[in-house]
Amino acid sequence: MEPVSAAVSAVLPAGGSGERLGGATPKQFCGLQGRPLVSYAVRAMERVSWISDIIVVVSPENIETMKSIVEKYGHKRVTIVKGGITRHRSIFNGLKVFAENQSSNRLLQKPEVVIIHDAVRPFVEEDILLKVVMAAKEHGAAGAIRPLVSTVIASGEDGCLDHSLERARYRASEMPQAFLFDIIYQAYQQCTDHDLDYGTECLHLALKYCKTNAKLVEGTADLWKVTYKRDLYAAESIIKDSLSQQICIITDVKEAVVQAGFLLHESLKNQVKVEAISISLSKNDSHLQNIFSGECYNFLCINDKEYATEEIQQLVDMLEKSNVPLLYPVVLILVHLNISENISFSIGLEELTKIKKFAREVKKKNILVYGLLIQYKVTERTWHIGGDTNTPIKANFCLSWRQKDLSLQHPLYSQKLSKVNNFVWEMCSANRKT
Amino acid sequence: MEPVSAAVSAVLPAGGSGERLGGATPKQFCGLQGRPLVSYAVRAMERVSWISDIIVVVSPENIETMKSIVEKYGHKRVTIVKGGITRHRSIFNGLKVFAENQSSNRLLQKPEVVIIHDAVRPFVEEDILLKVVMAAKEHGAAGAIRPLVSTVIASGEDGCLDHSLERARYRASEMPQAFLFDIIYQAYQQCTDHDLDYGTECLHLALKYCKTNAKLVEGTADLWKVTYKRDLYAAESIIKDSLSQQICIITDVKEAVVQAGFLLHESLKNQVKVEAISISLSKNDSHLQNIFSGECYNFLCINDKEYATEEIQQLVDMLEKSNVPLLYPVVLILVHLNISENISFSIGLEELTKIKKFAREVKKKNILVYGLLIQYKVTERTWHIGGDTNTPIKANFCLSWRQKDLSLQHPLYSQKLSKVNNFVWEMCSANRKT
Repeated sequence: MEPVSAAVSAVLPAGGSGERLGGATPKQFCGLQGRPLVSYAVRAMERVSWISDIIVVVSPENIETMKSIVEKYGHKRVTIVKGGITRHRSIFNGLKVFAENQSSNRLLQKPEVVIIHDAVRPFVEEDILLKVVMAAKEHGAAGAIRPLVSTVIASGEDGCLDHSLERARYRASEMPQAFLFDIIYQAYQQCTDHDLDYGTECLHLALKYCKTNAKLVEGTADLWKVTYKRDLYAAESIIKDSLSQQICIITDVKEAVVQAGFLLHESLKNQVKVEAISISLSKNDSHLQNIFSGECYNFLCINDKEYATEEIQQLVDMLEKSNVPLLYPVVLILVHLNISENISFSIGLEELTKIKKFAREVKKKNILVYGLLIQYKVTERTWHIGGDTNTPIKANFCLSWRQKDLSLQHPLYSQKLSKVNNFVWEMCSANRKT
Repeated sequence: MEPVSAAVSAVLPAGGSGERLGGATPKQFCGLQGRPLVSYAVRAMERVSWISDIIVVVSPENIETMKSIVEKYGHKRVTIVKGGITRHRSIFNGLKVFAENQSSNRLLQKPEVVIIHDAVRPFVEEDILLKVVMAAKEHGAAGAIRPLVSTVIASGEDGCLDHSLERARYRASEMPQAFLFDIIYQAYQQCTDHDLDYGTECLHLALKYCKTNAKLVEGTADLWKVTYKRDLYAAESIIKDSLSQQICIITDVKEAVVQAGFLLHESLKNQVKVEAISISLSKNDSHLQNIFSGECYNFLCINDKEYATEEIQQLVDMLEKSNVPLLYPVVLILVHLNISENISFSIGLEELTKIKKFAREVKKKNILVYGLLIQYKVTERTWHIGGDTNTPIKANFCLSWRQKDLSLQHPLYSQKLSKVNNFVWEMCSANRKT
């Protein structure tokens, strides 16, 4: 179901010089967790299925940089357009591509509604995009607004306070904004050079030249613009935070394994949002597909087979197909339960080599695999946990212990799972911290 | 020399509920690196020698919390005052303390100029405080301003855009602000209940009731107000950043030691701002005193004596007296050079115990001591570096190696100092990361 019954495309001006940031790199190209800011903003648009084309307007000297970003992060719906010397001129260039079909790569369909968003506002959600698009369809123009954080004042010519504005009457105009394409394009065509050189606000142009009073839509705090260095810090922390917020525990349908999954769920749920599902990995489970599309970046897969290579490969394939690892690294923790009595603790050297090789391979796909072996010998009442992360990951981890006098609530798992819990937590956090 | 020839005090309203932050803890009490935000703001005021009294106004339920903060972080010039239900009422309560001498603790002198600053703007510098105070002396009122980040718009009753303001004509009104005490107090005395309940801007009151047009002073980007959760992230990153930006290398005046200090300086200077000084610690060196007052938090002390306990104790005493460890933890790395041929590598168990005990003691004073032993045996061309951080710090570190074929530029130190460099870097970073 398409929530929007209109052709919608987006223009992202990304031509700014980032002078307020105080660095040499324009802010839209600054890396957050190694990925440029503009790529997050593009991805935020690409996630929305009803946005057809995404025009990214960059200054001439950054076209090659932008091309390599599109390639590296697999952006599919992006057209790169050469910007002008001001923000308005860049947006106008972006709009022209639709009107004049001048793009050399392919023909772009003129949209009914065009979204204008900033490359430096990476956290825009589908919800607010939908709201401004629907409002633009009805009113011709719409834009997100936020309450003012500071009082706004006007200064006199002597550098002294002339008057302060009543804060409740005013709002900060933010992005995204959306317009009926014909309205905003017509407004730009009528613009004076003064508008193009000194103005910044598209809503103002729609009002001035097309008498269109934009509908104002209350946005969330996430919409703020990365302006100063502190905003880069904040954006990076928000990304790290969201990465470690959720974990999905996947088990097959055998009782012992499901039980372990349940206990892990209980023990982890104080720290993160946990979703536990029992599935047969051999079938293409729709529940799992939903989770993949729900932006979860941590997976824990419990099995009791000896290195269930096929199942793991399948999981990796599904993850890859889901495009989840395109945006952020995905952590995949393989927990192998061994509850038989006669197998020795140590993992065979051959198996270890195999797992390590596998982990190295999938790391290239931005999936970080960790292995964990849990063995329970009923006769000795001894628990072992062996973590193998001599895999491709920076964090080193090796843990094993014996405990003679366990008073386990559940004969097999229970208490010691808090150690697994810690392991899981550490692994999920490890690559966020770097 | 006092830069301000007037009695100056400050009022910090800290009564907010922090609802925009979305958390249970009001933002001024949120911890950054374990220390509440309000304590940073207070400390920013306390660093300025010409500010006499600092009134912190908190809501009744937070008075005990604030008291414990004052005690824990050793704030000396703070008077806690009970706030009102709005920001203006809280500021008024703060001002009344000076006018009515109603504080039960002690008599507070009525200042000529009063600074009003927010508890949630922790990075205010002496420079801008001085500017607003001087401007207030001349004009009666003054406040910091910043350019607007977003366009400000007025909405009509239908929720649509009415008009947008010309961005260049307007400014965001920020803190700090300063007033001749009599002016702002008189303004508050004339305030209506509506002003006290719905207004937020002191400059506006001075204009409305005392016809005083405040002088507007361009502030730096640091002055921003911690409003949303992302601002807490940003503030924490800024603090961490500033902590690891500078290191001071202290050596005694012996040639070999000075030489090592010089090479370390060369090798570290790509990563941090390094200041290297050679002093005789037995004298109270004024250069060192300057560095202590210049907000350096990392010290590396090189010596070639066997555990120069006295010198180290002296350094710790100086650090303590300087109040530097009051705000942030201080890292003190002791590097002991051993260039004699006949002493074995290992540090004696007795010495180790002694150093560990010492480190445990000074940790209570917020000084984190790390030890590093470097031994060079000319005959074997062998380097050893032994790091003892089984001291009070979380990070574990132990490093030692041999290298047979060193092609040292300098016979004694040079290349291998890059390892020391790494050690230093790790230690300085370790407690910032936690």
